[in-house]
Amino acid sequence: MASLASPERRRRSSLPLAEVVINDNFWAPRRRTVRERALPYQEQRLRTGGQFDALKLTWKPGDPHEPHPFWESDVAKWIEASSYSLTTDPDPLLEESLDEAIALLANAQQADGYLDSYFTLVKPGCQFTDLQDAHELYVAGHLIEAGVAHHQATGKTSLLDVVIRLADLIDRETLPGGRIEGGYDGHEEIELALVKLADETGDQRYLDLGARLVDNRGKQPYYFDLERERRGDEGWADQHFPDRTRRRQRYREYSQSHMPVREQREVVGHSVRAMYLYSAMADLARELDDAELGEACEALWQDLVSHKLYVTGGIGSDGSIEGFGQAYELPDLGSYAETCASIGLVFWAHRMMLLTGEARYVDVLERALYNGVIAGASLDGTRYFYGNPLASDGGEEREEWFEVACCPPNYARLMTSLGSYMYVRDAEGLYINLYASSTARFSVNGHGFVLTQKTDYPWNGRIDVTVEADEAGAKMALRLRLPDWARGARLIVDGRPLPGEPVNGYLVIDRSWGAESLVTLDLGMEAGVVYPNSRIQATLGRVAFQRGPLVYAFEEIDNAAPVRQLVAATDAPIDSEEVVSLGVLGISLDGLMRSEQSGLYSQTPPVFRRTRLRAIPYYAWGNRGLGTMMIWLPAAHSSPLGYESGQCSRPGSVIDMMEQLGSPTIVRQ
Amino acid sequence: MASLASPERRRRSSLPLAEVVINDNFWAPRRRTVRERALPYQEQRLRTGGQFDALKLTWKPGDPHEPHPFWESDVAKWIEASSYSLTTDPDPLLEESLDEAIALLANAQQADGYLDSYFTLVKPGCQFTDLQDAHELYVAGHLIEAGVAHHQATGKTSLLDVVIRLADLIDRETLPGGRIEGGYDGHEEIELALVKLADETGDQRYLDLGARLVDNRGKQPYYFDLERERRGDEGWADQHFPDRTRRRQRYREYSQSHMPVREQREVVGHSVRAMYLYSAMADLARELDDAELGEACEALWQDLVSHKLYVTGGIGSDGSIEGFGQAYELPDLGSYAETCASIGLVFWAHRMMLLTGEARYVDVLERALYNGVIAGASLDGTRYFYGNPLASDGGEEREEWFEVACCPPNYARLMTSLGSYMYVRDAEGLYINLYASSTARFSVNGHGFVLTQKTDYPWNGRIDVTVEADEAGAKMALRLRLPDWARGARLIVDGRPLPGEPVNGYLVIDRSWGAESLVTLDLGMEAGVVYPNSRIQATLGRVAFQRGPLVYAFEEIDNAAPVRQLVAATDAPIDSEEVVSLGVLGISLDGLMRSEQSGLYSQTPPVFRRTRLRAIPYYAWGNRGLGTMMIWLPAAHSSPLGYESGQCSRPGSVIDMMEQLGSPTIVRQ
Repeated sequence: MASLASPERRRRSSLPLAEVVINDNFWAPRRRTVRERALPYQEQRLRTGGQFDALKLTWKPGDPHEPHPFWESDVAKWIEASSYSLTTDPDPLLEESLDEAIALLANAQQADGYLDSYFTLVKPGCQFTDLQDAHELYVAGHLIEAGVAHHQATGKTSLLDVVIRLADLIDRETLPGGRIEGGYDGHEEIELALVKLADETGDQRYLDLGARLVDNRGKQPYYFDLERERRGDEGWADQHFPDRTRRRQRYREYSQSHMPVREQREVVGHSVRAMYLYSAMADLARELDDAELGEACEALWQDLVSHKLYVTGGIGSDGSIEGFGQAYELPDLGSYAETCASIGLVFWAHRMMLLTGEARYVDVLERALYNGVIAGASLDGTRYFYGNPLASDGGEEREEWFEVACCPPNYARLMTSLGSYMYVRDAEGLYINLYASSTARFSVNGHGFVLTQKTDYPWNGRIDVTVEADEAGAKMALRLRLPDWARGARLIVDGRPLPGEPVNGYLVIDRSWGAESLVTLDLGMEAGVVYPNSRIQATLGRVAFQRGPLVYAFEEIDNAAPVRQLVAATDAPIDSEEVVSLGVLGISLDGLMRSEQSGLYSQTPPVFRRTRLRAIPYYAWGNRGLGTMMIWLPAAHSSPLGYESGQCSRPGSVIDMMEQLGSPTIVRQ
Repeated sequence: MASLASPERRRRSSLPLAEVVINDNFWAPRRRTVRERALPYQEQRLRTGGQFDALKLTWKPGDPHEPHPFWESDVAKWIEASSYSLTTDPDPLLEESLDEAIALLANAQQADGYLDSYFTLVKPGCQFTDLQDAHELYVAGHLIEAGVAHHQATGKTSLLDVVIRLADLIDRETLPGGRIEGGYDGHEEIELALVKLADETGDQRYLDLGARLVDNRGKQPYYFDLERERRGDEGWADQHFPDRTRRRQRYREYSQSHMPVREQREVVGHSVRAMYLYSAMADLARELDDAELGEACEALWQDLVSHKLYVTGGIGSDGSIEGFGQAYELPDLGSYAETCASIGLVFWAHRMMLLTGEARYVDVLERALYNGVIAGASLDGTRYFYGNPLASDGGEEREEWFEVACCPPNYARLMTSLGSYMYVRDAEGLYINLYASSTARFSVNGHGFVLTQKTDYPWNGRIDVTVEADEAGAKMALRLRLPDWARGARLIVDGRPLPGEPVNGYLVIDRSWGAESLVTLDLGMEAGVVYPNSRIQATLGRVAFQRGPLVYAFEEIDNAAPVRQLVAATDAPIDSEEVVSLGVLGISLDGLMRSEQSGLYSQTPPVFRRTRLRAIPYYAWGNRGLGTMMIWLPAAHSSPLGYESGQCSRPGSVIDMMEQLGSPTIVRQ
């Protein structure tokens, strides 16, 4: 089916998933684990947990497995993730399972197109009466994404037809006279799904519906107030307790419906909902050439990256709302940072890059992907974190599954569709956004190209890219992202250094290509200290460590003590060495260990002891049993002389100084 | 009327308010401000805000000033605070105002004794249907406290008679067959009030009622579930969303009704509610010789002081529930620490001392009183903090009044009854719990005593106590509290040093007294560093400063920069000097100021500059306009040599070291 967007207004697009083959040592094993373990496990949970059974519409009150309001979204995310997987890795048995599930979904669909077995079975008559909480459009959104992915993967229209009927129903009901006229879902999702449906079907109506839902949001009188009045379930306490009045306003912010989205300038509320909304806004800005929506997106992005982003790419520090705190409110212990929110940030960042062609969005995407997202899954791919704390007092463990099972299938669908985030094409050429050994096929100016990356990224900053054009002299602009963490990058094309400043964060090679060219990018990957803005109260006087895109974490098991006792020396040289048990590159440096103390507050100073500090990539934490973990260590304020200048004849580090002064608070080893 | 308690089970009691005269320069001006400004202001708010008018029972729907569910508690706390004030400072006009308000309360009381104008006027028929949220027994509790205080102050029974009828109604309704059989209020308060009513009337029934309400709490099936079922207002979302299921359990913890109180070992939930419950438990343990209740109190106390107490005596770090976070969850920025909660801690700590005779509870009482409580009011006594942050980004300001106006009258009733927290008597003698220039009259062993304190506490650690007995040879054990912060205290009795270890935290002078003896206690008050337990993630690597009972705060106005830029040197000598504009003793010491940085995270280290750090007592912060404030500063880890040992020829402090090393990150001045 045809694309709606003209080349002008959709200049950039992801390479189709089928055209990208990932064959590296970092992502490929993760993707294999998702295919071989996660997807079958999820299917089994859906079969035994009641989700499949509910779709038979035979459940009666009193039966086990009472349907849950958003069970269909679990089924949909599994179908979507599986469809992406089928695109790159055909699997007839999996395809049969999808057919079975899709037949069940078709069975559960009502004559008018409605599809949500909870309301059909458990609360008939309550359909579309509580968009604030009931998640019906959210469920529809995931079904639509699944329908599009399944159609793209298999060419079958079995699910696409179902979701078209569902989208058409929602379209009718949101128009004047419809049951949810002026409405929108408390949990965004359908808006970005409708953009995909419009692209897949070429039907402008779905873009219009998506735009309508986005623009209904936050208009006064508030839709959630109107539907509450219609339901008549407002209690006396709701009216009279100030905390509940505040709660209602807080709920609006929670669901990004406190003001029209075009006026929003601050990222607030439930972080997954926010990411899905902003993703849809970025999509619509691009598809509809809507500059005002694009400006809102940019302002929201600036707020996020300037005030509310964890160093891991985690977002949403306030667990009580699964969402954003105030500006600079970024505690490490007790941080929330839901896995799904970082996945949502990947969605949004990618769309912002498509909208603008700027690499700075991908810098954040990469930060989220290599830290906040993949920390959500265990190294063996079978257990998950719902939230991803930046520090642990030893009580956190990944789990197999969750009552609200959003994270495992969300992680699965990102992993199986990872190829579509690596490469972006436009009329002039190709952007390389992510580095990993892989092959990409694409056409520019009527010429076919094959591009191959070979690299040990993220362990090594050297990336070898070979480019083959289908005939000599084929013009193509190759843009290689220069990550924000890189210092002193070198670009070599066919053996010759290529100087030049980055454009929009990309090193550009705009030339004619021939049979095979070799491009080498060396990003000079060295471990270094990260200093937090002092407005972040939680990490005041502390530092973190980063190497390439990876943020490092100190775990108790590597440091022989609760990590809250560690103090980092910011001038100490940092060594890198493989941690064989985890298959990662760890770092180590000199530092101090302070004594534990009793009581909450003491007049007696602690005692410091010299020690070797060891850290592993954050994403790999929590894979060796329970124990304390921290990213941000208190820093000994110190001179960068000594270690770095080689003037070791005089004391150069705070550790040395403290020892040489014979301080009674330092224990000599 | 007679006391219920036998001497054995009520060995210790506060000196009656009328027997203590406070004439110092610290508390007396605060108490005068409460009398002359706060109580009249509160009366005016009650007259113009609708609280008095509601009691006329003429309000109709559509009229302005719709009554609020707990308006009577505002009236009650004002009457209670005013009554204490009348005890020490007679005021015929104020007494007339009380008579007027009491006549209104009597007018609003229904034939059966019920008294809550909101339910009488706005929601007739809903009485006693929502103890979880409606605050009816909470309101009754404050009315009872007011009735007792008014009776004690004036001898009049006008309000006491009203609250006896109200208490009798509640007694009947909580017995088998009553409307709230097995019930208890979501907000504790009435339990401790009933102990006072039992004491005042000599009627054991009120003690039994208090004990019944305390022991009903947390029993299964949960009362709040039962009344919700009876009301039938459970929504479908309540049943099916996991966050709401969790919320219900969280609500039980919020109101300390998650398990029977005798089994509770962890302080949880809304901190004011918790303090009022634990105060009642301590009272009942003492009045009823109930060792099991006493053990629960002690376990809860240990949990509080070991895990959940701010250095300011603030409690309740989680603003979203106005209550306790997890153990060691004590953030400084965004800390909640409600003024009323610290006041409630004073109530509980005092009762724990009465129960056990141990000074360690008063150490905490003093910490709360001199920091968390009085920080709640501006120095001129006209504006209030609802919550008391331990750090401010510059946005916090005290306000004149609050929609839920609990703090101002709660502060007022503590100030006007302060005398009853200073001295405790038992059969053998007197405990001095708080130090302030004052006179106390009491009898021991049939002998009358007059005790006079003269001191500049909390600015100076010297306390001169004169004791006069009515005849020579009168036996009396005088116990002077040795504060936990004191180092090297000296006790001199009639010119001779008195050695001896403290007993239960008190220095004991057990002897015969004559015409006039002089006891001098010198607590050697020096400013020093406070180190937090490293399990408190929020203050990791940071330190605070304390002098005597006062915790110090760094404000932007004294430090010419946002205080988040300051770094403390823990080995620097600390000077004290008067801050004339505030009438307080400030401290100053050498330290560093680091540069601001842009962006959330940076690879570039900050620059440090030597500076002089200045701090004022925490309670006095926020009285000179908006600005940043911090208690806990990042610490330069350093040697205690140099400054303290006098070996200044070699670098002795981290600051000196950093400068002498010629670090490019240090700017020399």
